[in-house]
Amino acid sequence: MTSNPAASFNARLRQTVRARGSLLCVGLDPELEKLPAGLPRNTEGLVQFCCEIVSAAAPFAVAFKINFAFFEALGKGGWAALERVAAALPPESIRIADAKRGDIGNTARLYAHAIFHELPFDALTANAYLGEDAALPFLEDTHKGAFFLCRTSNPGSGSIQLFPQLRREEQKPLYLHVAQQAAAWNKNENAGLVVGATHPDELARVRNECPFLPFLIPGVGAQGGDLQAALKFGAGATGDLCLINVSRAIIYAGSGKNFAEAAAAQADLLHRQMREK
Amino acid sequence: MTSNPAASFNARLRQTVRARGSLLCVGLDPELEKLPAGLPRNTEGLVQFCCEIVSAAAPFAVAFKINFAFFEALGKGGWAALERVAAALPPESIRIADAKRGDIGNTARLYAHAIFHELPFDALTANAYLGEDAALPFLEDTHKGAFFLCRTSNPGSGSIQLFPQLRREEQKPLYLHVAQQAAAWNKNENAGLVVGATHPDELARVRNECPFLPFLIPGVGAQGGDLQAALKFGAGATGDLCLINVSRAIIYAGSGKNFAEAAAAQADLLHRQMREK
Repeated sequence: MTSNPAASFNARLRQTVRARGSLLCVGLDPELEKLPAGLPRNTEGLVQFCCEIVSAAAPFAVAFKINFAFFEALGKGGWAALERVAAALPPESIRIADAKRGDIGNTARLYAHAIFHELPFDALTANAYLGEDAALPFLEDTHKGAFFLCRTSNPGSGSIQLFPQLRREEQKPLYLHVAQQAAAWNKNENAGLVVGATHPDELARVRNECPFLPFLIPGVGAQGGDLQAALKFGAGATGDLCLINVSRAIIYAGSGKNFAEAAAAQADLLHRQMREK
Repeated sequence: MTSNPAASFNARLRQTVRARGSLLCVGLDPELEKLPAGLPRNTEGLVQFCCEIVSAAAPFAVAFKINFAFFEALGKGGWAALERVAAALPPESIRIADAKRGDIGNTARLYAHAIFHELPFDALTANAYLGEDAALPFLEDTHKGAFFLCRTSNPGSGSIQLFPQLRREEQKPLYLHVAQQAAAWNKNENAGLVVGATHPDELARVRNECPFLPFLIPGVGAQGGDLQAALKFGAGATGDLCLINVSRAIIYAGSGKNFAEAAAAQADLLHRQMREK
């Protein structure tokens, strides 16, 4: 499939999901200590590991997500390794920088430049805490997208995202306010939300609030999130409005020489489970 | 002054402020387009620029803050330039990574490793949107500190940070909730807050809520924040509880060959203004 250069990021995401018949996003969170036997435990081995996983999973995945922390933590040479892995992602897939960036306007513009122009990503994960003028620089180019953290999959996230935790039904929690803000910022058809599969009721509330925004859904797999709920509420009425991210369950499916085949088999299995449900 | 290796980050910050008689933090936000005449417009010139600013301002500054976006935006070689500038910061100063990081627990731990161990920073700026289990990895080592974004200096920040914007006096806004959370997370005496000088009334409210947390205060200078309010409410009862960041007004004080002397003169002036008020 060739991408339509005139389409917005959100339109391209939906077209790609439909054309590929897949909602699977493969998350690359590589660690030196977990590299399969036979690969050198250095940045060279880590790049090779990621590139082989990408090639093996590409037939089943519609998107790839690179977690920046795992590369920054390598220290010297880590950023260069990130550049190499990013360059190896298939350009016809949706390439997501999982960088959780967010800063005041002039600084956010530089993060956007780094991720969309110095690196070849199509979208990033972004943090909306700094408000509108900090969010908009990520949305200036209609071809590039931003998934704003809304309701994250980690256990302690409610201490902030459920604020003000009033019992009154009429009071909405922060995560819904962020979802409404992102919908208002979606002038260029390129805003989305990160909504974890570990809170299915809240995923349903966000989908109800934002029927047309694409969701990036982490938390299926190692974090124990609910795939059925992710599909039911995430994919939306048209079935093409989410990417379901799986990281560890795919990239560490095997620990030996056949790690790439094991990753492909696991990606194939998840892809089929997502179609059947 | 030699630092006390047994002291917490917050204790060391206060000791350093008192010993140096300065609250000034110099923010390094370098851009190729703004490098002074005579320096090459490449990463080499940018590193030289930063290192000369650091040497010139060091007699007047108690802290230095490196804005990661400005280095990541350089593309290839940007991260290596950041490593070189970070290595040139005086170890007796408070070295702050202005990276606004925040992610789920295992990922936050890697960002902490990158910034505190692969790079030589003493503290970072962090985003609390992901909640407690995402914040605590930045606070595990008592010698390393985290300034959580509370009330930021940019114009659009209220759309999130003032949520739920009720008129009822008893309802607190999100930024105060974040401040209370950070105070609760401060078990190892190493949590602080980012509170902009552009909202003096809210700075006073945060100080009232958190009398003992150190504040990192941006917004004085190019952003038009109120230095007097920053000192009155930021420095706290003991006068040693804040760092006042100035970036552009110092690093771009001069545009010619004497840029380092101009930066030193401006840092000296600001340092004296902070002492007199």
